[in-house]
Amino acid sequence: MKNLRIYDTTLRDGVQGQGISFTVEDKLKIVKALDEFGVAYIEAGNPGSNPKDIEFFERVKNIKLKNAKLIAFGSTRRANTTTEEDANVISLLNADTEVVTIFGKSWDFQVIEILKTTLEENLKMIYDTVKFFKDKGKSVIFDAEHFFDGYKQNPEYALKTLEVALEAGADSVCLCDTKGGAFPMEVYEITKTVVDKFNTEVGIHCHNDNGMAVADSIMAVEAGAIQVQGTINGYGERCGNANLCTLVPNLQLLMGYKCVPDENLKQLTHLARFVSEIANVTHDERAPFVGKNAFAHKAGMHADAVNKNTYSYELIDPSLVGNSRTFLISEVAGRGAVLNAINEIDPTIKKNSPETKLILDRLKEMEYLGYQYENAGGSLELLIRKVLGRYKPAFNLKEFKVIVNEPSVNSVNSFAIIKVEVDGVEEIAAADGDGPVHALDNAVRRVLERFYPQIKEMRLTDYKVRVLDSNSATAAKVRVIIESTDGKDSWSTIGVSTDIIEASWRALVDSIEYKLNKEN
Amino acid sequence: MKNLRIYDTTLRDGVQGQGISFTVEDKLKIVKALDEFGVAYIEAGNPGSNPKDIEFFERVKNIKLKNAKLIAFGSTRRANTTTEEDANVISLLNADTEVVTIFGKSWDFQVIEILKTTLEENLKMIYDTVKFFKDKGKSVIFDAEHFFDGYKQNPEYALKTLEVALEAGADSVCLCDTKGGAFPMEVYEITKTVVDKFNTEVGIHCHNDNGMAVADSIMAVEAGAIQVQGTINGYGERCGNANLCTLVPNLQLLMGYKCVPDENLKQLTHLARFVSEIANVTHDERAPFVGKNAFAHKAGMHADAVNKNTYSYELIDPSLVGNSRTFLISEVAGRGAVLNAINEIDPTIKKNSPETKLILDRLKEMEYLGYQYENAGGSLELLIRKVLGRYKPAFNLKEFKVIVNEPSVNSVNSFAIIKVEVDGVEEIAAADGDGPVHALDNAVRRVLERFYPQIKEMRLTDYKVRVLDSNSATAAKVRVIIESTDGKDSWSTIGVSTDIIEASWRALVDSIEYKLNKEN
Repeated sequence: MKNLRIYDTTLRDGVQGQGISFTVEDKLKIVKALDEFGVAYIEAGNPGSNPKDIEFFERVKNIKLKNAKLIAFGSTRRANTTTEEDANVISLLNADTEVVTIFGKSWDFQVIEILKTTLEENLKMIYDTVKFFKDKGKSVIFDAEHFFDGYKQNPEYALKTLEVALEAGADSVCLCDTKGGAFPMEVYEITKTVVDKFNTEVGIHCHNDNGMAVADSIMAVEAGAIQVQGTINGYGERCGNANLCTLVPNLQLLMGYKCVPDENLKQLTHLARFVSEIANVTHDERAPFVGKNAFAHKAGMHADAVNKNTYSYELIDPSLVGNSRTFLISEVAGRGAVLNAINEIDPTIKKNSPETKLILDRLKEMEYLGYQYENAGGSLELLIRKVLGRYKPAFNLKEFKVIVNEPSVNSVNSFAIIKVEVDGVEEIAAADGDGPVHALDNAVRRVLERFYPQIKEMRLTDYKVRVLDSNSATAAKVRVIIESTDGKDSWSTIGVSTDIIEASWRALVDSIEYKLNKEN
Repeated sequence: MKNLRIYDTTLRDGVQGQGISFTVEDKLKIVKALDEFGVAYIEAGNPGSNPKDIEFFERVKNIKLKNAKLIAFGSTRRANTTTEEDANVISLLNADTEVVTIFGKSWDFQVIEILKTTLEENLKMIYDTVKFFKDKGKSVIFDAEHFFDGYKQNPEYALKTLEVALEAGADSVCLCDTKGGAFPMEVYEITKTVVDKFNTEVGIHCHNDNGMAVADSIMAVEAGAIQVQGTINGYGERCGNANLCTLVPNLQLLMGYKCVPDENLKQLTHLARFVSEIANVTHDERAPFVGKNAFAHKAGMHADAVNKNTYSYELIDPSLVGNSRTFLISEVAGRGAVLNAINEIDPTIKKNSPETKLILDRLKEMEYLGYQYENAGGSLELLIRKVLGRYKPAFNLKEFKVIVNEPSVNSVNSFAIIKVEVDGVEEIAAADGDGPVHALDNAVRRVLERFYPQIKEMRLTDYKVRVLDSNSATAAKVRVIIESTDGKDSWSTIGVSTDIIEASWRALVDSIEYKLNKEN
């Protein structure tokens, strides 16, 4: 079985996609999840073009990776300068990763028309930049931008760019279909030429503008490429990058290559949804392998055939990628994953214990209401504690009232009044804020501080809103996810309602309850 | 240039997709649009399995098709009966189309395990059914279900099913990858074998379970298939069918085959969106060729390169498929796109007119505040009108107040009071709702109906919320986008604020102003 190296670029090329952006906190979470899944490389940012990435590369040093190597990505030096005086090159060096990926042009047209430099200078730019990083002791991957378009118009020059990178010491060259217009057969033939010519690790990086990024990547692997670049859920500029959630099961389950440990493949559906949630993008339910519909059978005849023999209409056993024939949240998160969460509270509970079934049933009910616990571990823990009877509410809400005024007075337009009861003692407080949720958040903290001064330690770091059935317009259900921290830990909680204030309130209550229960 | 026959099955296989269903009225509209676009075949229903289709085939007779042939689809007769006594066969006959497509099994495993009959009887079923329809004077296409899986396990039998269909008089055989698991290379080789062996029109029908339906179809065409089956937007069971909106531009614009009249290709983006609208499914904006993002450029460097030369990052000129280029950051975007919008209001304004600069400056200011006009054409038009002095406010808000109570009374928890002024006349109204935005939406409609009864024509069809700087937690800025329709047009508007109610209010006001300004 041939080993492949999966190279994830969700955090770099993925964020070129419209509507995709991640905070530093988001990126750290995704790095951990990708490493857990078992990819070989995580291309995590472009420190030269994105100042936010500088903070990220500083903070990511505290994470110990088990499987993956972290990569910073950047361009060759500019024309007619030296690497030492190129600010982007220096930023890339300062990111301080063991591996860097340098991209350069392999298409003569791009060199002349876009970079506005000579073919000769472009080769020097590639050589100098790769050499610079090799001299600093880095592993270097050379991303040959527009390689296929370049090869089709000027094969000698395209190959020359690879040769120069390898002469400068590059450890691997990756062939990029940057415009996303290559066809499967030509990808096979061109990749084969490169594999036969150079004795090095060859990679493939495809875009999906013609809808064939996955097929093209597979053809490259069949031609001998062993490094496969792509993104979770196919995020990326324009029509996206090759979707690793489609590629990995194809390669590993249907073609017999080894991408990640077999056991880890079961995390795939969860990983795909987790990244969708963090990106705050609706998960594509029609996506191969990881979509809810991938193993859904509608036609009477097909459903009947599947009942007779699942092999008749299913490519793989859905559980191999952590998906299921009938989508249930509990099964998508995986009975295994839920059991892990249960065992953190009570290690004696087994997969077949009656408590496990009670919890799964409760999860199904909540899911039906629009809850999703993949990115709301705090709420999941509270739900488990409630079912197990290991939960004591820290306070009872008696009443709240929120008032929004337009026009606003002194730029504050919202007020909240809240009354709670703790161990028979009632307390009332009010606060204002920028908007109703902010006012309510301020009010509930103020009213609880008297009973639980440790509430001052915690603060909210993230607030996401998703409209679930947006066709219902302003009467639609909304899902709110809140991220909180107390400096030591951070946790996520969820609330769902047709009223955004109520949904926010539910997520807020879970957030506070989580903090207070954690301390007991 | 080789002619291909595009075979659309949106109305038959497409409706096997989750959440896809069409009324008879919808189907008639789609038939007209497909015919207009220029496909060769429209497979429009399965009268045997779907009684609604019987009414459809009756009514569709009144439509004169210019390009396409209408097809009714059905199974071979059941095992151990005669065609004459098979109810499905008779329904198919009664659909009264010039062409029928008969599907039968080409995979021995399916015959034995699913149909529970003998290999010999299955061949007779194919023969009898094709012969029956040929005797009635029909053109017959034979869909060889599971052909690729069948061929891989028992090539003789798979080929035999085609041979029998052709002996019975079939005019064409279509090779189906029913499970959606075939790989490009094997599709090429197996299709080539069939094309070389039989002197007939060979078709290809792919499903997308491995993410390669489009690539597989293209490989089949390269191997000699001339009939290409698929659906608009790739709708279909599980992960969908081959997407014709991806296939047709690839084949016609990048590979030099002829699928539809060149001129008609410009309808493609509109057709794709039209079908999404009718199916009431969110259009996939990342879809190749027909998604809004397909020609959107985000990265500074790419956008810059596209400005220098569109060929550098675009497969085709987007106007060839009726799409358009968008730059995701309007500062980079420049004048071209905005100028188009300006010229719809005032055709005399030029790229270098002072008004253009004023509008661009205003756009930059708004963008800095978190506005984005890519998906808010209604608000963009209002902004331009305001700068040009071609806008008259329909009403002035004097004040509103929204109150949210927890616990709620009779399940309604929100109330809104609003006071507006129109031409010196003040009016006040109140309403309740599921959540504060719903209550406010109800109240503003009520208060304006007295002045503008046409407001009753409009309704909101979509409501989206995005938190912009989610790190600011509950004090974060939110962006609301609202989609509205009055049955004739639809338009999108935007509002941004730290307060979700205020953001929603701004989008609501734009929506109403757009409607009322449109009528003047």
